[in-house]
Amino acid sequence: MREMTKKSLSEAFAGESQAHMRYLIFAQKAREEGFENVARLFEAIAFAEFVHARNHLEALELVGETKENLQTAINGETFEVDEMYPAYNAIAELQNEGRAKRSIRYALEAEKIHAALYSKAKQAVEEGKDVEVGDIYICEVCGYTSESLPDRCPICGATKDKFKKF
Amino acid sequence: MREMTKKSLSEAFAGESQAHMRYLIFAQKAREEGFENVARLFEAIAFAEFVHARNHLEALELVGETKENLQTAINGETFEVDEMYPAYNAIAELQNEGRAKRSIRYALEAEKIHAALYSKAKQAVEEGKDVEVGDIYICEVCGYTSESLPDRCPICGATKDKFKKF
Ligand SMILES: [Fe+2]
Ligand SMILES: [Fe+2]
Ligand SMILES: [Fe+2]
Ligand SMILES: [Fe+2]
Ligand SMILES: [Fe+2]
Ligand SMILES: [Fe+2]
Repeated sequence: MREMTKKSLSEAFAGESQAHMRYLIFAQKAREEGFENVARLFEAIAFAEFVHARNHLEALELVGETKENLQTAINGETFEVDEMYPAYNAIAELQNEGRAKRSIRYALEAEKIHAALYSKAKQAVEEGKDVEVGDIYICEVCGYTSESLPDRCPICGATKDKFKKF
Repeated sequence: MREMTKKSLSEAFAGESQAHMRYLIFAQKAREEGFENVARLFEAIAFAEFVHARNHLEALELVGETKENLQTAINGETFEVDEMYPAYNAIAELQNEGRAKRSIRYALEAEKIHAALYSKAKQAVEEGKDVEVGDIYICEVCGYTSESLPDRCPICGATKDKFKKF
């Protein structure tokens, strides 16, 4: 694929991903306000944006086999832990932006765990096996990720009822 | 919020949204390959990235009331229909990139419908009512969005079993 077409599709993937995300967030908000049909409309269209994003990523030949996809995931998480969030945190510290600092810290703590879990999964898949992992718990407040359900979230202090099980 | 912190959080929102999207796509691929636990791990971590993206967007004060969120959605869809996809399509035409052209056309056709559905929803919410909308059907191949289930997708030709109902 030629470079400018590739650039277009990469930008379109970024745009579709952000539209998808906004609509999921707006759906939660609509449901809170009692607009159930609007919430469902946001969720349906979020799924359409998923289809668009997937088609763009496939056209870019960036969906590989699971072994490769896990390496892509590890690379992304590692970049966030080693460079991206520490850099953004330095800016938020300098500018004394408390809410941004918290949002950045919450993410950084979880990304470390994500990198480790994906590494474990990659090892299994390279041996031709599925990864051995039980229930996975995600804190709905900060995104903390754990293989067991804590009494309180060690990152944000949320109680155990705030965890979603996968 | 100061400008450079805002820029950081905006970039972090873009990064989290794309990580979330990649993991959903990689989960489908892992399930196809028989790695059910890896698929579940991708889905769990995709949810953690949703939490991070939502926290960043809230810190940026870009989550409003539903009325405002619908206007944000309309603006995004209208930009995609009027400018973004036509521009990307012109590049793909020029460079004769067939797969990109298809992926772009699929998206463009759906975005027109999204803009109309969100406009209808906004009108209702401005009158203090939920929008009147029945089941919504999304084509899993191209993202075509419809209030009724067609025999075949008018955009990509997929059969009706390829539609997901919301
Ligand atoms: Fe789209
Ligand atoms: Fe992560
Ligand atoms: Fe937490
Ligand atoms: Fe994240
Ligand atoms: Fe759309
Ligand atoms: Fe279709």
